[in-house]
Amino acid sequence: MTRVNIAGLSEHVGAGVELQGWLYNKRASKKLQFLEIRDGSGIVQAVVSKDDAPEAFESASRLSQECSLRVSGVVARHPKHAGVFELAVTALTELSAASDYPISPKDHGTDFLMDHRHLWIRSRRQHAILRVRHAIIRAIRDFFDGRDFTLVDAPIFTPNACEGTSTLFETDFHGQPAFLTQSGQLYMEAAAAAFGKAYCFGPTFRAEKSKTRRHLAEFWMVEPEVAFMELAEDMQLAEEFLSEVVQRVVRERSDELERLERDVSLLKKVEAPFPRISYSDAIALLKDNGKDAKVGDDFGAEDETIISSAFDRPVIVHRYPAELKAFYMKRDPVDARLSLCMDVLAPEGYGEVIGGGQREDDLAALEAALTHHQLPKEAFSWYLDLRRYGSFPHAGFGLGVERLVAWICGLPHVRETIPFPRMLTRLTP
Amino acid sequence: MTRVNIAGLSEHVGAGVELQGWLYNKRASKKLQFLEIRDGSGIVQAVVSKDDAPEAFESASRLSQECSLRVSGVVARHPKHAGVFELAVTALTELSAASDYPISPKDHGTDFLMDHRHLWIRSRRQHAILRVRHAIIRAIRDFFDGRDFTLVDAPIFTPNACEGTSTLFETDFHGQPAFLTQSGQLYMEAAAAAFGKAYCFGPTFRAEKSKTRRHLAEFWMVEPEVAFMELAEDMQLAEEFLSEVVQRVVRERSDELERLERDVSLLKKVEAPFPRISYSDAIALLKDNGKDAKVGDDFGAEDETIISSAFDRPVIVHRYPAELKAFYMKRDPVDARLSLCMDVLAPEGYGEVIGGGQREDDLAALEAALTHHQLPKEAFSWYLDLRRYGSFPHAGFGLGVERLVAWICGLPHVRETIPFPRMLTRLTP
Repeated sequence: MTRVNIAGLSEHVGAGVELQGWLYNKRASKKLQFLEIRDGSGIVQAVVSKDDAPEAFESASRLSQECSLRVSGVVARHPKHAGVFELAVTALTELSAASDYPISPKDHGTDFLMDHRHLWIRSRRQHAILRVRHAIIRAIRDFFDGRDFTLVDAPIFTPNACEGTSTLFETDFHGQPAFLTQSGQLYMEAAAAAFGKAYCFGPTFRAEKSKTRRHLAEFWMVEPEVAFMELAEDMQLAEEFLSEVVQRVVRERSDELERLERDVSLLKKVEAPFPRISYSDAIALLKDNGKDAKVGDDFGAEDETIISSAFDRPVIVHRYPAELKAFYMKRDPVDARLSLCMDVLAPEGYGEVIGGGQREDDLAALEAALTHHQLPKEAFSWYLDLRRYGSFPHAGFGLGVERLVAWICGLPHVRETIPFPRMLTRLTP
Repeated sequence: MTRVNIAGLSEHVGAGVELQGWLYNKRASKKLQFLEIRDGSGIVQAVVSKDDAPEAFESASRLSQECSLRVSGVVARHPKHAGVFELAVTALTELSAASDYPISPKDHGTDFLMDHRHLWIRSRRQHAILRVRHAIIRAIRDFFDGRDFTLVDAPIFTPNACEGTSTLFETDFHGQPAFLTQSGQLYMEAAAAAFGKAYCFGPTFRAEKSKTRRHLAEFWMVEPEVAFMELAEDMQLAEEFLSEVVQRVVRERSDELERLERDVSLLKKVEAPFPRISYSDAIALLKDNGKDAKVGDDFGAEDETIISSAFDRPVIVHRYPAELKAFYMKRDPVDARLSLCMDVLAPEGYGEVIGGGQREDDLAALEAALTHHQLPKEAFSWYLDLRRYGSFPHAGFGLGVERLVAWICGLPHVRETIPFPRMLTRLTP
């Protein structure tokens, strides 16, 4: 008998097949038992008839949720739903029992579910989210690979606590302190000089004490960086990137997004070009909406929601005051108080998903910025080399994967966007 | 004038184009200067004629290695080499100087080059290696994505120092100790129960004090895990995986491998199926080669070289004594002293590139193994849950990317296989 997986059942209609998996759920009448069986590729309803398969019926009555099993049967089209298949069971074997499986169909508290994350990922909803996550990661890599970017993995261990240690995780690296990376950007600037177009994609770390629905201690970030690219093209790259990734995931993961009851009509609007407003336009927009905002303020989550609500797709806010941004941002030649930076704010209150801009490529200006920010020049010596030897205009951005997963899936909290979340109060399982 | 990159020159033969990049090298005669210009996508020879472009000739004479520049010219086919293109320069502008670029064409010591890694990656050889690395990573992901594996990122922070702290990096995770992952495998076993076929691919960490040509403190590992798969299929998956990845990279990166003077005829032999020998066969093979080997010995680098030299492609060694392997390996039902494990040894002395096997799926046997290895049962409670609730046969393996890069590129040391290596004595740049 052919061994198949549930995702492939459509190719075996009318044939006898064998499946292995776990019991997701069951219900029974006097003569029939309906088993929902999952094998990781999908869930199928297996119908066990007392008259047609009395032994299997007897076995099925003893099965409990999440036992593993092997089942044989004939594949049939669902009588009502097109594209759905069922199994008419002929034989059934329990492989391993599962008494008192902790996650029952009833409601559990978040902490309980997070404590059982290793089992919780078996459930239909978590399964769908993580399948969307995979599709997003693949779409991100394919986008950059398709545009001839070279993947250049940034290091995780970094030698200097350049911007203060308060949000850094520290470790003893064979006798010297090392810090876990918060961003691969500085390394990608070196990579852009070597490869023209480069990106890194890996885990990054923040030791922030804040406990919000948007923060993880460990999260994945993709950071492209391009030589001879300036701010205008950077914004264009960001909007093409984001819209291509969103549209591809909407196409490839429609079943999962439906399962998550996501309104994909909102996602389908994410098409380039995105509206662009300057930081000062954004401040004016906040004032128009009754907020007490003034130039020099950074945007909080509520501000971002107000700004993004004015548009039907992501909005790019550019040219923030330099004082709000990192030392490496290039000043706007038109107004030196501003940075050549940009943030992309997602709709529906999901806030900043992309942050980036053009980097300072003038050696003297960068040295002055280091001094101004009271940063140790010695630690940045290698980074300054990129301006000493054939400096070049360049720009890039960073996107945090988990916020994008939350937005595309429509989740209120990032904790479900990564298989095994690490947060202020969560290091297990 | 059309702005192009060097990789795309073939589409503009006879046309005037503009390039931006860096000066890689130059040589001159009285009337001609030959500039090797790189832009990250490739290197092109730009010819500057004193008669045809006197201003550009004058500018070119002042250029030094690794200055950034903009150059215009007409694309021509190389008079002798098919598929090679040149630029007949019409105009040339230096964008930013590079005086005394530290890496000259003369030989430098390894430490010097590693100290200048941020610049060294611009050189032709390092560029080629990292392009091969990217192709390998892409081929790995495409292999698993193409077989419907779900990517399930394993956590980097792990709560327990389960197998001793001597090779673990530790950090303070908001008041509790956390350790940087050495393997995502245990998490992939949970993922296999949720997704059937799962893999993780991310950085892993070893704090080993050893300083060898095969070890990095930070390296990338891919770890697939499959539900209802046993050892025989695991070996088959490993050989299909490795041969597909190697053959694809040989096809896609032939220019880079030629640049590295790699004998690809040896790589082309890497075709499934691979020979399989048992551990005891391997011991016999060592004895036949004059080594003083006996059952119970683990293999050193020299042993692996002797074993692999007996074959023209990678060899799979299976069923090692259980005492040599981790607690989670399933015992061989035919001989309980053995593990259902396997290693794939690469040819040419590159040693173990894959290690894996079938996992213990019996709850009582796994609990006994924990006790035998003096491991804290409490820390493994979640892992034991996978046997408590619907246990299932499963197997998988791990492959370290940097060893594969070293082998495919033919490098004696792993330090050049990753953009910014971290080793016992190396945390910068």
